[in-house]
Amino acid sequence: MNWRERPDWRVYLVTDRELCLGRPLEDVVLRAVAGGATMVQLREKEASSRDFLALTRLLVRELHGRGVPLVVNDRADIALAGGAAGLHVGQSDLPPADARALMGPDALIGLSVENMAQLEAAQTWDVDYLGISPVWATPTKTDTAEPWGLDGLAEAGKRSRLPLVAIGGIHAGNAAEVIAAGADGLAVVSEICSAPDPEAAARFLRGLFRNIPPFRPSAASPHGRE
Amino acid sequence: MNWRERPDWRVYLVTDRELCLGRPLEDVVLRAVAGGATMVQLREKEASSRDFLALTRLLVRELHGRGVPLVVNDRADIALAGGAAGLHVGQSDLPPADARALMGPDALIGLSVENMAQLEAAQTWDVDYLGISPVWATPTKTDTAEPWGLDGLAEAGKRSRLPLVAIGGIHAGNAAEVIAAGADGLAVVSEICSAPDPEAAARFLRGLFRNIPPFRPSAASPHGRE
Repeated sequence: MNWRERPDWRVYLVTDRELCLGRPLEDVVLRAVAGGATMVQLREKEASSRDFLALTRLLVRELHGRGVPLVVNDRADIALAGGAAGLHVGQSDLPPADARALMGPDALIGLSVENMAQLEAAQTWDVDYLGISPVWATPTKTDTAEPWGLDGLAEAGKRSRLPLVAIGGIHAGNAAEVIAAGADGLAVVSEICSAPDPEAAARFLRGLFRNIPPFRPSAASPHGRE
Repeated sequence: MNWRERPDWRVYLVTDRELCLGRPLEDVVLRAVAGGATMVQLREKEASSRDFLALTRLLVRELHGRGVPLVVNDRADIALAGGAAGLHVGQSDLPPADARALMGPDALIGLSVENMAQLEAAQTWDVDYLGISPVWATPTKTDTAEPWGLDGLAEAGKRSRLPLVAIGGIHAGNAAEVIAAGADGLAVVSEICSAPDPEAAARFLRGLFRNIPPFRPSAASPHGRE
């Protein structure tokens, strides 16, 4: 299956085992997907490679049949061996060109950008979307740069041919503003992982996209705002 | 180049940036190779993927021209993107079969084994050598199992069709005993990384193999002790 043909990053769950309130990570992920999460990024910074791979395989089996791509954070080897749909890299991970060379032409590849210079540099690369990181400051990630803010996000939308997935401090109370500012997708960690009801949390976010189709890179005007 | 055809793990340096006494890692590695190190494993547990890849490429460029293979610890994606000769995996890293599938038929692949059951399980796998870990207890790695000891190493040699590279607590004062017990190679970390003169430290170890050829898997009796 070529996941690049029909990407849908509207409700994009990024996992964090530590934030799952003691619940098994895979349970939280499946509840989120039942609620309408459209993409999942598996992020494991502490797990051994062997455990990371086993979890990737488990989630690929559960999610791909449901039409939801699993993207692995940073580790192209885990993504490849696990049969994941793609890879997400940050600015200190594998360079996007190396990620693409390893993952092949059919893989979804995302890149986090922390400022406008990085966003503009990314426009010519063979990646599928950009993570706008962080929109707001957040306790989940402490190593990130100055937040983009809603104005920065809006400006990023004007300058990007690539779809934008916003991450950082997004919750039910501000998600609509993020979409209004031009985000093609909402990436959340604690908003779903730590929710009392991950399914309901995902359903709420998905509902905000009621009249907004998933970005389609094959459309005539790829970004809609160009 | 197919590094599997002529492997030589007699003096096998495993890197540890923290133990290099403030000297640049690449300088220590090149001094060790000048002294006779025959293989280098790049182990970076803290570096970002991007830095790890850049260092891999630098060392591949420096070492492969000198006929010394560079093997990457754990990260098959870094090994592949960096053009390394191979990959070394531990028991909680990628399973050997997945490592081989990712790395391809020409890559050198090593596997650490911590007990006889693991050593026996590894005999049917498509790996090139086994790391006998640890021979002795060592402050460098604190997460390892009960040491093999010299008697355990000797017994391992009788039960293994694969060449054995001993690691853990090896230094100039005991290295000859490790060879006498049947090790095909000596893997060292601090003995070279923290040596006042890494070149001299490597030269001493290499000298212990004066009358011992590198293991050759293509020989009629592959392990010599069978």
